[in-house]
Amino acid sequence: MQAIAVSRDSEGPICIEKPRPEPEPGEALIQTLRVGIDGTDHEIINGSYGEYPDGEDHLVLGHEAVGMVEDPGTTNLERGDIVTPTVRRSPNGDSVYFDRGEPDMAPEGSYHERGIIGSHGYFSEFFTSQAHHLASIPSSLAQVGFLVEPLSVVHKAIELATSSRSSFTWEPTAALVLGNGSLGLLMLAHLTTTDTYKRCYCLGRRDRPDPTIDIIERLGATYIDSRETPVDMIPSAYESMDFICEATGYAPHAFKTVDALAPNGVGALLGVPDSLNFEIDGGALHNELVLHNKALIGSVNSNMSHFETATEDLRTFPDWFIDSLITDVYPLSKFMHAFDDDDDTTIKTAVQLSAYEER
Amino acid sequence: MQAIAVSRDSEGPICIEKPRPEPEPGEALIQTLRVGIDGTDHEIINGSYGEYPDGEDHLVLGHEAVGMVEDPGTTNLERGDIVTPTVRRSPNGDSVYFDRGEPDMAPEGSYHERGIIGSHGYFSEFFTSQAHHLASIPSSLAQVGFLVEPLSVVHKAIELATSSRSSFTWEPTAALVLGNGSLGLLMLAHLTTTDTYKRCYCLGRRDRPDPTIDIIERLGATYIDSRETPVDMIPSAYESMDFICEATGYAPHAFKTVDALAPNGVGALLGVPDSLNFEIDGGALHNELVLHNKALIGSVNSNMSHFETATEDLRTFPDWFIDSLITDVYPLSKFMHAFDDDDDTTIKTAVQLSAYEER
Repeated sequence: MQAIAVSRDSEGPICIEKPRPEPEPGEALIQTLRVGIDGTDHEIINGSYGEYPDGEDHLVLGHEAVGMVEDPGTTNLERGDIVTPTVRRSPNGDSVYFDRGEPDMAPEGSYHERGIIGSHGYFSEFFTSQAHHLASIPSSLAQVGFLVEPLSVVHKAIELATSSRSSFTWEPTAALVLGNGSLGLLMLAHLTTTDTYKRCYCLGRRDRPDPTIDIIERLGATYIDSRETPVDMIPSAYESMDFICEATGYAPHAFKTVDALAPNGVGALLGVPDSLNFEIDGGALHNELVLHNKALIGSVNSNMSHFETATEDLRTFPDWFIDSLITDVYPLSKFMHAFDDDDDTTIKTAVQLSAYEER
Repeated sequence: MQAIAVSRDSEGPICIEKPRPEPEPGEALIQTLRVGIDGTDHEIINGSYGEYPDGEDHLVLGHEAVGMVEDPGTTNLERGDIVTPTVRRSPNGDSVYFDRGEPDMAPEGSYHERGIIGSHGYFSEFFTSQAHHLASIPSSLAQVGFLVEPLSVVHKAIELATSSRSSFTWEPTAALVLGNGSLGLLMLAHLTTTDTYKRCYCLGRRDRPDPTIDIIERLGATYIDSRETPVDMIPSAYESMDFICEATGYAPHAFKTVDALAPNGVGALLGVPDSLNFEIDGGALHNELVLHNKALIGSVNSNMSHFETATEDLRTFPDWFIDSLITDVYPLSKFMHAFDDDDDTTIKTAVQLSAYEER
């Protein structure tokens, strides 16, 4: 079968031939339908992130996938079921975090991430997985189920942030997403399609006309241009925010979030920046965190419970949103196009490995 | 009656004569037994914090008090009941935060704080208060009940921090308190007398012999000298901490807390520093917050529920701890001594306005 991988011997992703995997006991064989591309794939390709599996000269990419059960093996799945796999795996099978269903809380170094760290991903015509790492999703999501993984990351962050405000009466009305990439837009779609927030905002640095600004506004949210309104000026230009989600990886935004929050507000941080030194008024930030009961919450990855709520959520998103978010789906023969993101019209790309046909 | 106040016309606290207050409907008249002194009092005296009541030339100090009901008025209290008052008041009586019993979550500018902001405190022979702002405490705490207020601030911070970890299985074992002032030591006493933490640490910058180090060690905790081990080096020198409470008001500590936390750990910030610019590796801090699901939670003030749990907690503290913490109790005639904190042997001082006599 064909697989898309990075290799020690070549630059950029390549198409390689690998044997179709055989499911072990407890595993199912999945025929891959589509794989989504995100920023982490780009970091792996440019060498700034990721880890080859032990003793291997290549890493099969792909951590956002949707597929169809080809062979359920000894599992309770059925042939033809539509599934989307979670990302983290326990290399030794002896992790308390995995045992309690919370691999997203496992510390660095104690897990593999399929397609990212130490374990092959899903960017191949077939893959195998333990059944308990596969979320069953409705066949209506067979084309777009690769969005469940990034949306599950949104759900994890919301859960962590909301729980941090659970010891008092919190009635948020205004939310802000920092970043208009695909993760930021998924967060915004979630925020605007639930009843919690009356007013939503999304920060970017794009000129009109721009397809992400069109999406932001069609979702009923307000676009904020960070070149005109820096994060800490948002309260005076718009309003203070009860909830802010940072999805840019730009560290100064993370700290200025404190200034943009309303009293008792919470900022969820999702970006994973490199080292970056800069000066802050740390005294003022510290003071503001304390005197207004503000919180900053880091959040990474997600677990099966978040895959389940994300699946329900994705079903409620309007079709136009998903159609606008997924700007291109390429056939496997043109997989390289899916990694082009220079174009201002590209938001989210995917590669189709097999067409979905109901069985 | 006599009262201790700051005045527009004089430097430092002075003793003034004021009429004994008359309780309004819903209020009780309290005979003050003792008033505790803390850092906020010093900030008010040196002019860096606090606000005179509207139209007044003085502010009666005192926000940590214990007293005895002298006249219950129309309330359900009884003469001789021992009470300790909360701090925040709603100047207009129309605050949703006060209505729902959460004055601690009210935004700045929407509340008075007795003895601090816009409203006279409890540092007088008698004071009045609405009964619902008075916590009834056992008569066994009549001498030390002024510690309920600072301990309630500890309870609020613990509650906020713990709730931020409530969406996943959190099994903390190691805790660190930054600061060996009276608030830090109250936090440490709480942490070491509950079963949650197996190992507790407290950071200070004092040479031995020192009474706070003696208390830290008698509580079973480990003293860390910040001059030898900066906050971000604590994991390599000792261990990573699941919970950190910052009670120093030194902003660099607040940010280095992120480095000292274990994965999934939370830092509660209590200090209220002034503006202070410094450089951070904001990228690394942001990255670490995210990849290890860490959180920073600011916490201020407390409400009646925290007064109630703090009262229960204070009853369980060993006598030697309270005796060692309260280094001096002065009579009203020597109130100025209670504001002396230059001495390395002073931890917590109080002034006794009336001796407690059981009725």
